[in-house]
Amino acid sequence: MNYLNLSASEIKTEKEALLKQYENYKGMGLSLNMARGKPAPEQLNLSQPLLDSLKSTDSYISADGTDCRNYGGFDGIIECKGLFADILETSPENVFVGGNSSLNMMFDTISCFMTASIYEDTLPWHDVKERKFLCPVPGYDRHFGVTGYFGFEMIPVPMKADGPDMDVVEKLVSEDESIKGIWCVPKYSNPTGITYSDEVVKRFAALKPAAKDFRIMWDNAYAIHDVTDTPDKLLSIIDECKKTGNEDLPILFCSTSKITFSGAGVAALAASPLNMKVLKKRLTFATIGYDKLNMLRHARFFKNFDGVKAHMEKHKAILAPKFKTVLDKLSTELADANIAEWTNPNGGYFVSVNVYKGTAKRVVELCKEAGVVLTGAGATFPNCDDPENRNIRIAPSFPGVDELSLAMDIFCVCAKLAALEVLE
Amino acid sequence: MNYLNLSASEIKTEKEALLKQYENYKGMGLSLNMARGKPAPEQLNLSQPLLDSLKSTDSYISADGTDCRNYGGFDGIIECKGLFADILETSPENVFVGGNSSLNMMFDTISCFMTASIYEDTLPWHDVKERKFLCPVPGYDRHFGVTGYFGFEMIPVPMKADGPDMDVVEKLVSEDESIKGIWCVPKYSNPTGITYSDEVVKRFAALKPAAKDFRIMWDNAYAIHDVTDTPDKLLSIIDECKKTGNEDLPILFCSTSKITFSGAGVAALAASPLNMKVLKKRLTFATIGYDKLNMLRHARFFKNFDGVKAHMEKHKAILAPKFKTVLDKLSTELADANIAEWTNPNGGYFVSVNVYKGTAKRVVELCKEAGVVLTGAGATFPNCDDPENRNIRIAPSFPGVDELSLAMDIFCVCAKLAALEVLE
Repeated sequence: MNYLNLSASEIKTEKEALLKQYENYKGMGLSLNMARGKPAPEQLNLSQPLLDSLKSTDSYISADGTDCRNYGGFDGIIECKGLFADILETSPENVFVGGNSSLNMMFDTISCFMTASIYEDTLPWHDVKERKFLCPVPGYDRHFGVTGYFGFEMIPVPMKADGPDMDVVEKLVSEDESIKGIWCVPKYSNPTGITYSDEVVKRFAALKPAAKDFRIMWDNAYAIHDVTDTPDKLLSIIDECKKTGNEDLPILFCSTSKITFSGAGVAALAASPLNMKVLKKRLTFATIGYDKLNMLRHARFFKNFDGVKAHMEKHKAILAPKFKTVLDKLSTELADANIAEWTNPNGGYFVSVNVYKGTAKRVVELCKEAGVVLTGAGATFPNCDDPENRNIRIAPSFPGVDELSLAMDIFCVCAKLAALEVLE
Repeated sequence: MNYLNLSASEIKTEKEALLKQYENYKGMGLSLNMARGKPAPEQLNLSQPLLDSLKSTDSYISADGTDCRNYGGFDGIIECKGLFADILETSPENVFVGGNSSLNMMFDTISCFMTASIYEDTLPWHDVKERKFLCPVPGYDRHFGVTGYFGFEMIPVPMKADGPDMDVVEKLVSEDESIKGIWCVPKYSNPTGITYSDEVVKRFAALKPAAKDFRIMWDNAYAIHDVTDTPDKLLSIIDECKKTGNEDLPILFCSTSKITFSGAGVAALAASPLNMKVLKKRLTFATIGYDKLNMLRHARFFKNFDGVKAHMEKHKAILAPKFKTVLDKLSTELADANIAEWTNPNGGYFVSVNVYKGTAKRVVELCKEAGVVLTGAGATFPNCDDPENRNIRIAPSFPGVDELSLAMDIFCVCAKLAALEVLE
């Protein structure tokens, strides 16, 4: 039933039927959550042996002879540098291993550039009064939170099926010296799940920004997080930037938050020698070193990159049916109605749904009243400002399949109801 | 033999005898290190059971029901808030539990105030061009490193036997609005080992700084780190500041780096509601939360504050003979010569020695040539500038007693040699 072709009376009948279903759901007193990209307990259980990978009787000495219990080892143990280099497709010497959060490393990176010049003849960004940052939309709310906190004007850039609209990016960065960077989740993007095409990566590597200190925040959070057997392949931005002589453009981030434990994983960044010099100058005063015992625990648990990949297969086995549930429900319940669009990601943690124009907030509200919590409407846009009020991020990972199925039924009813409220 | 009363020929004879000893030590090809306040392996061994306190079969749920493996728990688990509240003598609601490093939390605190105003009508410190920070000397080199990195002019304040010279502190902060804070290690101070007297703490609490956003960085790193059976007692700065209505003045820091594992402990800060609001506004964008599994590991290992105190008795048993060795050697070898002064701390990690005026660098150099590494001369002063070139920080914790004894023999010979070079 294509909602766009319904007569007034057909709308009335359909709405009444939906309202009946909706009231029925409300009566169930549910409490379901599809708000955040949190791994489910079964996923965390996969890493339970990690808790035994460094017992009191095991050696606490890393491969290079460091006592991981004591001070030292500023930039991380060599085992973890190797693992993260494999994940980020670079060399261990470009890697700095940090604490439990890549978000924290991204925040610190921006914080560093706020008060320290990247080049002798550029200003700390705090001193650039009209500082701006590019934000592909829809995107990751916590990225926008960081640049929002530091007072950047955030310029939305449309996301296409193969990445940010590079015509827009190229034009903006070549013209405006106060644009200091761009947020990217290049693989299984948050929330659309798309992966940047080779052409997009090449165009990023070939950027000629007006600002010498323009930086690409390349958050490769889902580098190895497939949910289908037809995974996407991302071109290496580091390799491409070497070809163009732009190796200082990108700074790469990743973590094991969605590999082992979200709250107790290990994070890392990779950067060119110049960027690393600026960052390490700060870090050398900021810490004596991050938690090396947790690094060692991870290295022992995985043994090598093959161990990481084998582990990710287990995550896939848990996540794949959840993504299928979401996509099947959307397809069954919303395709005919012609009021919504969504993506079919091969990995990552989200499905991005564009509901009927102008109804995202209403859908989230209706869902909430029926006990289904979604990410706030607009959260995927800087300052929560979704100009078309359309985008909703669905996070299928945390609930069980049955819960998810029910939550999606409710979501679809709410999406249809909200659309009809506008169409009537 | 009082060196100050020696005749030229007596000096010559004494110097020749010392040189003979010195060359003898050099010939031994030693490699001894008294440079940093690193716990010894035997101290780290005390916490080895911590590695088993959270096994794969144990509950990973904290007292308030949080799955410590997953995201969430922004300001730390309730168990650790309680432990740190006990250590810092405050209430759990004033505590924020962080990562593995209190230095990192101090750095982040200064970093926060660099770009964020503490009050609506005060400037971010980055915008205060002539910003200054008070640095009691001798003090902790890494403190000075933080404010040095952020471009503060660092003003040395003399340390007395009961804390910083408060006449100087009061005068400076009341006159100069660009003085934004002071570094304090109030108990078993780094490096002198003294504890601030009640009067000094009360005078800190009663400060009337010209800068509304002046802050006391109260690094209580050695709060429970006694090395004798006559421990010092520090007045609570939080209680005193409540009495004076100055509760926003201090921010307190501590960690388990010298309780459990230096590289993999847990750190915390305590702050007034206003300071906490400013800091949390930043932290909420900087992280989803720190490593809760490590917090849980610590909480399970100690059970309660009594467990922490019992554990510290074991550290004391290891450290006490080392401090005794250092102090005995200084007393036996240097007291009569009348060329040096030192402190007799009841706790902490250091013995501060003032060698003969103008000879600290030479002593460190002589020691190094004989295979004994000391903290660089001057390190205890901002910008490594010890105007009298006298102060040397001795860190007795890492070497074994035999090594330490030998290293101290060498140190004393070097101190005497360097003094005679000047006296002759």
